[in-house]
Amino acid sequence: MSDGVQAFLTEWHRIVSEKDLAALPSMLAEDISMGAPPYWAKLQGRDLVRHLLGLVIHTIEDFTYQREWLDGNELALEFTGHVGEVDLQGIDLITLDEHFAIRNLDVLMRPVNGVIRLRETIAPQMAEYLSRGGGSVA
Amino acid sequence: MSDGVQAFLTEWHRIVSEKDLAALPSMLAEDISMGAPPYWAKLQGRDLVRHLLGLVIHTIEDFTYQREWLDGNELALEFTGHVGEVDLQGIDLITLDEHFAIRNLDVLMRPVNGVIRLRETIAPQMAEYLSRGGGSVA
Repeated sequence: MSDGVQAFLTEWHRIVSEKDLAALPSMLAEDISMGAPPYWAKLQGRDLVRHLLGLVIHTIEDFTYQREWLDGNELALEFTGHVGEVDLQGIDLITLDEHFAIRNLDVLMRPVNGVIRLRETIAPQMAEYLSRGGGSVA
Repeated sequence: MSDGVQAFLTEWHRIVSEKDLAALPSMLAEDISMGAPPYWAKLQGRDLVRHLLGLVIHTIEDFTYQREWLDGNELALEFTGHVGEVDLQGIDLITLDEHFAIRNLDVLMRPVNGVIRLRETIAPQMAEYLSRGGGSVA
């Protein structure tokens, strides 16, 4: 593993575990794209993705990273957690750019009712954010 | 990568690409467990999982493996495909046993409407199979 990937992972795990959202933007490329579990269309741009990730980090309880796979600048980080009584298993598929910032993040989760529960919690907050002029959806 | 993992991957890709379901059981441990996208409860046992995987392979169109991560006997295989006009991105998280057969397979997919479309197609066929006495759900 390169020093850059190692440094990324150490800081990423710290941010998620401490919910240090102020440090999140430095981990995201300005033109980051994100494939979220509910929708096919990618979310575009650092501000929008940062906002969504902040909501996710605060909504999934007992968020814990599990298995980890690394292949150059392509990372796969499995996680578990729950929303209320609904258990979740998910994976972050991360592509880092040459500065070790996230260029693309796809998040896949199971089961369906967990994704729907998460969406029900987060979608109104995202809609409120978007209505204030934040971000864009491709 | 060990020779056993390499041999597993070569045969797995062949089976999926040729839809060679007759060769599938030899890749699955007898006590395999599978976490499917729609449900939290794990499916248990070679016959049940083989049947479900057969339905999946025949239902997802243009099923194509993409990125691949390997870490000892833990594999993560990303795929894309579609069900009708609904695009899918998914990942197979595979744990191999000491004989390089699948001991556990978790399948995570996005987006939600793709998983629901897949479930709508497959669930009736699985129910029909279970009503004939096939397999069990933990």
